[in-house]
Amino acid sequence: MSLTPTKADRFSFGLWTIGYNGTDPFGGPTRPDLDVVEAVTRLNDLGAYGLTFHDDDLFAFGSTDAERQKQIDRLKQALADTGVIVPMVTTNLFSAPVFKDGGFTSNDRAVRRFALRKVLRNLDLAAELGAKTFVMWGGREGAEYDSAKDVQAALERYREAVNFLGDYVTDKGYDIRFAIEPKPNEPRGDILLPTLGHAMAFIETLERPELVGINPEVGHEQMAGLNFTAGIAQALYQGKLYHIDLNGQRGIKYDQDLVFGHGDLQNAFSLVDLLEHGGVNGGPAYDGPRHFDYKPSRTEDIMGVWDSAAANMRMYLLLKERAEAFRADPEVQEALAAARVPELREPTLNPGETVEQLLADRSSYEDFDADAYFGGKGFGFVRLQQLAVDHLMGAR
Amino acid sequence: MSLTPTKADRFSFGLWTIGYNGTDPFGGPTRPDLDVVEAVTRLNDLGAYGLTFHDDDLFAFGSTDAERQKQIDRLKQALADTGVIVPMVTTNLFSAPVFKDGGFTSNDRAVRRFALRKVLRNLDLAAELGAKTFVMWGGREGAEYDSAKDVQAALERYREAVNFLGDYVTDKGYDIRFAIEPKPNEPRGDILLPTLGHAMAFIETLERPELVGINPEVGHEQMAGLNFTAGIAQALYQGKLYHIDLNGQRGIKYDQDLVFGHGDLQNAFSLVDLLEHGGVNGGPAYDGPRHFDYKPSRTEDIMGVWDSAAANMRMYLLLKERAEAFRADPEVQEALAAARVPELREPTLNPGETVEQLLADRSSYEDFDADAYFGGKGFGFVRLQQLAVDHLMGAR
Amino acid sequence: MSLTPTKADRFSFGLWTIGYNGTDPFGGPTRPDLDVVEAVTRLNDLGAYGLTFHDDDLFAFGSTDAERQKQIDRLKQALADTGVIVPMVTTNLFSAPVFKDGGFTSNDRAVRRFALRKVLRNLDLAAELGAKTFVMWGGREGAEYDSAKDVQAALERYREAVNFLGDYVTDKGYDIRFAIEPKPNEPRGDILLPTLGHAMAFIETLERPELVGINPEVGHEQMAGLNFTAGIAQALYQGKLYHIDLNGQRGIKYDQDLVFGHGDLQNAFSLVDLLEHGGVNGGPAYDGPRHFDYKPSRTEDIMGVWDSAAANMRMYLLLKERAEAFRADPEVQEALAAARVPELREPTLNPGETVEQLLADRSSYEDFDADAYFGGKGFGFVRLQQLAVDHLMGAR
Amino acid sequence: MSLTPTKADRFSFGLWTIGYNGTDPFGGPTRPDLDVVEAVTRLNDLGAYGLTFHDDDLFAFGSTDAERQKQIDRLKQALADTGVIVPMVTTNLFSAPVFKDGGFTSNDRAVRRFALRKVLRNLDLAAELGAKTFVMWGGREGAEYDSAKDVQAALERYREAVNFLGDYVTDKGYDIRFAIEPKPNEPRGDILLPTLGHAMAFIETLERPELVGINPEVGHEQMAGLNFTAGIAQALYQGKLYHIDLNGQRGIKYDQDLVFGHGDLQNAFSLVDLLEHGGVNGGPAYDGPRHFDYKPSRTEDIMGVWDSAAANMRMYLLLKERAEAFRADPEVQEALAAARVPELREPTLNPGETVEQLLADRSSYEDFDADAYFGGKGFGFVRLQQLAVDHLMGAR
Repeated sequence: MSLTPTKADRFSFGLWTIGYNGTDPFGGPTRPDLDVVEAVTRLNDLGAYGLTFHDDDLFAFGSTDAERQKQIDRLKQALADTGVIVPMVTTNLFSAPVFKDGGFTSNDRAVRRFALRKVLRNLDLAAELGAKTFVMWGGREGAEYDSAKDVQAALERYREAVNFLGDYVTDKGYDIRFAIEPKPNEPRGDILLPTLGHAMAFIETLERPELVGINPEVGHEQMAGLNFTAGIAQALYQGKLYHIDLNGQRGIKYDQDLVFGHGDLQNAFSLVDLLEHGGVNGGPAYDGPRHFDYKPSRTEDIMGVWDSAAANMRMYLLLKERAEAFRADPEVQEALAAARVPELREPTLNPGETVEQLLADRSSYEDFDADAYFGGKGFGFVRLQQLAVDHLMGAR
Repeated sequence: MSLTPTKADRFSFGLWTIGYNGTDPFGGPTRPDLDVVEAVTRLNDLGAYGLTFHDDDLFAFGSTDAERQKQIDRLKQALADTGVIVPMVTTNLFSAPVFKDGGFTSNDRAVRRFALRKVLRNLDLAAELGAKTFVMWGGREGAEYDSAKDVQAALERYREAVNFLGDYVTDKGYDIRFAIEPKPNEPRGDILLPTLGHAMAFIETLERPELVGINPEVGHEQMAGLNFTAGIAQALYQGKLYHIDLNGQRGIKYDQDLVFGHGDLQNAFSLVDLLEHGGVNGGPAYDGPRHFDYKPSRTEDIMGVWDSAAANMRMYLLLKERAEAFRADPEVQEALAAARVPELREPTLNPGETVEQLLADRSSYEDFDADAYFGGKGFGFVRLQQLAVDHLMGAR
Repeated sequence: MSLTPTKADRFSFGLWTIGYNGTDPFGGPTRPDLDVVEAVTRLNDLGAYGLTFHDDDLFAFGSTDAERQKQIDRLKQALADTGVIVPMVTTNLFSAPVFKDGGFTSNDRAVRRFALRKVLRNLDLAAELGAKTFVMWGGREGAEYDSAKDVQAALERYREAVNFLGDYVTDKGYDIRFAIEPKPNEPRGDILLPTLGHAMAFIETLERPELVGINPEVGHEQMAGLNFTAGIAQALYQGKLYHIDLNGQRGIKYDQDLVFGHGDLQNAFSLVDLLEHGGVNGGPAYDGPRHFDYKPSRTEDIMGVWDSAAANMRMYLLLKERAEAFRADPEVQEALAAARVPELREPTLNPGETVEQLLADRSSYEDFDADAYFGGKGFGFVRLQQLAVDHLMGAR
Repeated sequence: MSLTPTKADRFSFGLWTIGYNGTDPFGGPTRPDLDVVEAVTRLNDLGAYGLTFHDDDLFAFGSTDAERQKQIDRLKQALADTGVIVPMVTTNLFSAPVFKDGGFTSNDRAVRRFALRKVLRNLDLAAELGAKTFVMWGGREGAEYDSAKDVQAALERYREAVNFLGDYVTDKGYDIRFAIEPKPNEPRGDILLPTLGHAMAFIETLERPELVGINPEVGHEQMAGLNFTAGIAQALYQGKLYHIDLNGQRGIKYDQDLVFGHGDLQNAFSLVDLLEHGGVNGGPAYDGPRHFDYKPSRTEDIMGVWDSAAANMRMYLLLKERAEAFRADPEVQEALAAARVPELREPTLNPGETVEQLLADRSSYEDFDADAYFGGKGFGFVRLQQLAVDHLMGAR
């Protein structure tokens, strides 16, 4: 297997990722702005297939129509020149002062209406560029203080907005699905729909739930101490993994946006294994873009920017290689069987078994030897884990 | 308002809470076992209205039918003597060695069948005692290692189990609803359905979603750094708050199970405010039991046990009193209005407004003064927060 | 007791706090810059006694000498006009691109030399303004990647710098002490001297440890899940609390810099109690400035800025009032005695007791009734905690 | 390099680690007790060189002298039979009810005296067995409630105890040093000396600081979100790494005690690199026992216990192998130089440079080009990190 990325790997990057200028809460930019044409050209050279962006990444908030169009045209030309595509577009409802209390759920109704208009306009652009996914990260939809936000009302307003947008793409015939990106906190003290679970639950309240899935980000779930791979498994189980944001995070702290695999390496390994081999029949479980939403460290100059972009793709391919070897190892298969992992695919009940039949099965209860599990019937999970780490480390 | 609890306050306690003997990962018991009759009697004296329990709290795992029945009879007599009721029952699928890899989702199919049988039997007892809620805390449904558990299969097995149990109570005509209790970790490294969001999302996949809600616990959500009040608001919004576990937790660490209000006091204040006054029309938002799932500190003797039980109820009533004063304060009402909190109840769209109409409303976008939000149009959230803290501290 | 701040309360604010313009990782400013003269004037009106600043707060990085002097003169005039003083000064070694890998411990030696020069110049200014404390927050002294920083070398460079600066103030005869401000992370993945413990340990390696203490910040310790009050107690015990940064933080997440008391309210209560009444003989334990290092929420306009400044002082005074009532309550005194809290002040050994004498005391071991602690000898900590919360809530 | 452990690797295990019976807060034992003779024999077979223990691991709390002696004799015989040694001994001051509020710092003075006696007796045993290190983990020295513990008094009592014990070993001529093991919380809400920094700071207050160092545990520091490798570097810098506890932890949560390397793999890599190659001259930085303080997962039977014991040693040796290759790779050396990592070893000041000389060096400030760090002078840290991960994954 090659470690050189190709378009077939479907790697995509946000314009705001490679374009991150280094600003953080304690310092200004350390790098000049990156032009979109250079971004597309260099990503193409590195083997990526897609570029994604917020409207404000491409043309500054408050641009005139002419400025906006000029940037769109420049992007289109770069796409045409390289074959790079735009698989996803998203709208910035969080940077400008007007969104200081959020967009769809700002306490200020005029802001909410403005936010809807901004998204509508960007949806047209997304459709024009052929994007299939429209991500919604509600980073400012939240509060620092419990009394400052009526959360039930906020959810109702969020629902109103998404229903309205769903109507819009349906009426327009756009081939676009929405993907909600959860995050627990930062920049708000607490953010609405803080985890992928909350987002998936919310989606079920929508008028067109089939139009809306999630775009989970590695670091965002790990900022809540949650197991990202397990969360993705639930998203796949519920058919809601519409897009994914890959990056790295080292534990519960501020949002680090490290290179994918530069955070929790073991969880990155199991994630790639799941995405590539974790389907119900053992095949790929996710076939969308492998989208990197990371930030090149503020310490780096432009060479470090491109090194870090390449590192994301290398990490994914390396982990994919390791996961393939893991799956192919007969000892791993044996250890999985010993740990009864595949047995969990077997229904608990016999085919068609009724309550009466289960109650009548004395082996299931009255004659069941529960004591055998003391001092016996070990699951062998530690051995299996060591085999996984051995493969991750290339030691088998 | 009185700070003396009465049955009208609907305070309930788990038998395992006041009965906690002090065992923890680094030490054995510091208190003898508490008899169920004493538990009921003392709780009644203190003003509680309900007792809840796991099967194994009342009669040890592996009890004979006679031992089991004796304890049930003793409980029933105590209930009859005091008027205390059993609003909720739950099943222990986590303490015995047989459940070391979980119950409904153990990799071992025989264990899964045994777990179903144990729950069926306990459902009959719940119905017999008149419990309306059956809680399912899947504390062992999880893993320490990503390769040890096929999470998609685990969800499918969990779903199979809950569907089966839903059929059972329906067929039997039991007036019982299920409530899933989420927890992110401990005792497993990662637990299935780690937050109330994940649980509510999962419920939507069930055959009878209306039969199943959630039983969120203060500390469990806070162990993931999540805002409990905000989570409860979403649960209420989705009609899924079937039961609630009140206690205290001081941040992201092991499960502390402190007295309610002895953890994050501000969040406890907003929680009581929400439960009591946070309905869409301003009325009570939740009318079920106020259930305390806490542990008397291991440092305490039996006097400390009852002091701590009383402290839970006192904290709830104190916070309720403070929340009432907060709501009734004209300056608070004015500050809420200034912060535009009530404005979030207003739909973003005008009645019947179409996309075309919104697009035609130049005031919503073309003529909208986004710049006014720089240096102006502050929300006054800090002032509102200070008013809330003033009320919490009894300083107004 | 009055809740109106006076200069006798010794409240001070960083110029960067009230001057925070709202920039965060996901958005630019929402407020215009605040002029230093207005800052001094308004703080004086509100009852504060002190203003503190980084050099770059007062005059932008790279200012000419004339620009710098103009701002210094304007500040001096404002101080003279109001009687406000400058109790503390600090140097910004973290915002400019040159400090992207730190100041004293940048891998780049030329940067380290530049940092020393910048601090020397600012020390002269601090002395000129009569500041008694010079804070060093090494926010960029750290790394994202373990191999990027030789931590032993970094500590040696940090030590070299502080020793050098200690020589400087000694030679100059400046009446200035240094205070190191620890932080675990943000903006770096991991920061050198991450907690007050690490900083105090490091100080012992210095040539002039008596010149160097710590400036702990509420939120910084709480970002590591540590109990701030307990940490301050250790700092007091070791004579190292040279300055303090008061603010609010809601758990382990990004650095929130909320108003003091708007984070963990219970810990804020015990902190004020400790500072005001926690000395070994019951008197004040700390007599330095009560310095607020917070950020007015980004949602606020200038009115919210001053509301939030006032809220910090109100919270401190309210908590002080509550702590005084707590200490004065006879039932609290009785509960403290029952919990044997004062007994911890008694030495474990008898006066002059030798090993032989302890070994000969059969009551201490051979005849000691360890079993009595099972089911008895409870400490009554929960009752004491409830009394504390009652006082905090103004409910007694 | 061999991955087969030998006694030269100095691997040691606590008797309580392999002997862990599976009890946790939500369940009882899943495995029978492990006899000490079997423990020694099996560890010897696996290649370990040392066994460590708490007194209560070897003979239950409250044993008669005869029972105690019998177990000591059995241990001695096993040691003699195998050549296994006892490099470290520690005392259990946390499991029995008498220690429910701690040992050295219990509010109850009689308990404190009992604790001293228990430790004195165990010190004699440690000396008799030739242990060179006596670990003190004060797991119960702490509180759940801020008013329940006078932390300054607790530190004074802790200091009294350690000073007393220091006198004892000195008077007895024992060749034993003490090592304090920090932990932030669990089983207490907050524990005294919560991090290695706090412990090292405290040690400086002792009468014989040279007798006392620290025994940091991977998981304990990581429970506070701290970088373990960075902490160990500070401990080495301050000459205080007297012993080390290796295990695995997956983020901020309950104390997991996983196999070493089964937690944060990248930090485990940098730790082994530091221990083996991180001395000031590039040689080994620590030459004491590599002590594993982990728990075999509760899901395992005895086979899993020994698999997990072997996994600890395999992980260490694998990481050591990877670290050696990392250090030996010329491209890594080049990348380290490009990132200026070795430049941090160079003093910031020239030899003998005075303040005046630095002030006179215009290149250090007046002529220094700070602007060059914007858009240039990147550190190349991401490239270096990728090389580290490549080596960790065996991909170079």
